[in-house]
Amino acid sequence: MIGTHAKKSVISALGAVLLVAAGLFCLPPAAQSAGQHTGHRVVLQVSDDSPKTWNQALNVVKNIQQAYGKDKVRIEVVAFGNGIGMLKMDSEVGNRVGEALQSGAKVYACENTMRGRKLSKDDMLSSIGYVPAGVIEIINKQKQGWSVIRP
Amino acid sequence: MIGTHAKKSVISALGAVLLVAAGLFCLPPAAQSAGQHTGHRVVLQVSDDSPKTWNQALNVVKNIQQAYGKDKVRIEVVAFGNGIGMLKMDSEVGNRVGEALQSGAKVYACENTMRGRKLSKDDMLSSIGYVPAGVIEIINKQKQGWSVIRP
Amino acid sequence: MIGTHAKKSVISALGAVLLVAAGLFCLPPAAQSAGQHTGHRVVLQVSDDSPKTWNQALNVVKNIQQAYGKDKVRIEVVAFGNGIGMLKMDSEVGNRVGEALQSGAKVYACENTMRGRKLSKDDMLSSIGYVPAGVIEIINKQKQGWSVIRP
Repeated sequence: MIGTHAKKSVISALGAVLLVAAGLFCLPPAAQSAGQHTGHRVVLQVSDDSPKTWNQALNVVKNIQQAYGKDKVRIEVVAFGNGIGMLKMDSEVGNRVGEALQSGAKVYACENTMRGRKLSKDDMLSSIGYVPAGVIEIINKQKQGWSVIRP
Repeated sequence: MIGTHAKKSVISALGAVLLVAAGLFCLPPAAQSAGQHTGHRVVLQVSDDSPKTWNQALNVVKNIQQAYGKDKVRIEVVAFGNGIGMLKMDSEVGNRVGEALQSGAKVYACENTMRGRKLSKDDMLSSIGYVPAGVIEIINKQKQGWSVIRP
Repeated sequence: MIGTHAKKSVISALGAVLLVAAGLFCLPPAAQSAGQHTGHRVVLQVSDDSPKTWNQALNVVKNIQQAYGKDKVRIEVVAFGNGIGMLKMDSEVGNRVGEALQSGAKVYACENTMRGRKLSKDDMLSSIGYVPAGVIEIINKQKQGWSVIRP
């Protein structure tokens, strides 16, 4: 027979193992890949050639920043395909893209799309960033727990 | 040496602890925040100014209700930005929005958008609901495990 | 008192139980329903009546296959509502749909939409597949862990 005391000590030892193991096995994928809680994170997909939609995406950036607080949310705007015009030098919303960048949002153009349309970085708004493939960027961020919105 | 009998009783005690702990730690986030399993839940985003898209969203409401059974699915339609016209008094799909409400779907207009377009509740279809920011409503529901579709 | 040796053997037995149980309880829903890790899986929603969008969706198929490797990703294109024209016999992008099918992507038309528009399988491109309700297909795949993109 094992005494109650001894049984309890086995149970506590195993309880500890259990807690650690539960932590290792059961964290949602987002938390695992981020390593820690990172607050609100939103990717906005822009793939329409309509300035109405571009303005709408930029309104959404503002609304999200107002709702969560600018410092408490990470926002990425990713333009690809028919949406690439939003980030060209002659974009109707060039000023507003600049304001979004100033406010802390990241803005990325898809290099796949640029290659397909023979656009170089000289054709694009300054200060924006680039990703090899817009759609893969969106898929990856979603897998890491970001919210994805297509305004 | 511990007898087989004693070993078994330690193992069963710990098995129980394990089951409870697994339940606490490993529920998916949706189930955790909802408190219990809640069946099918779908948010439909409407942010285009096209009556074609509005009709499509209302068709999707019907198709989802047919597939799951009206009583076994919660559906929210959230209109914001260029989609707000769907819910204005003079909307081309006003009757169908009424039918969707009758069928048990919730329909919400974005108050951010309304403020930006100087719309008051008097300008809107009766019986609809309101949310402070359509995009935040969609992000929140998605985090709670709802499916999000932009028809 | 239990000897150290005996305690260790209880702990290892329970460690094993723990690992198995953690495996059963804590796998994400996607992995559970798939039975095993299945690599990248992406559903593309097509619900616009614009050939520009159809071409964009087919570009996205290519870009995803290039990024992950054709053999390392499963892609489904699901057309419903206003997007059904993409898969009709007279579709402007019929050839490209054929190429996507050749490349290993699956392409499905929504039977709900077809019924609503009095389309039969004879009106559709050959070699495509069919789903009872496009939107339900997308919701189900998302629940199983697939990424959903609406290009």
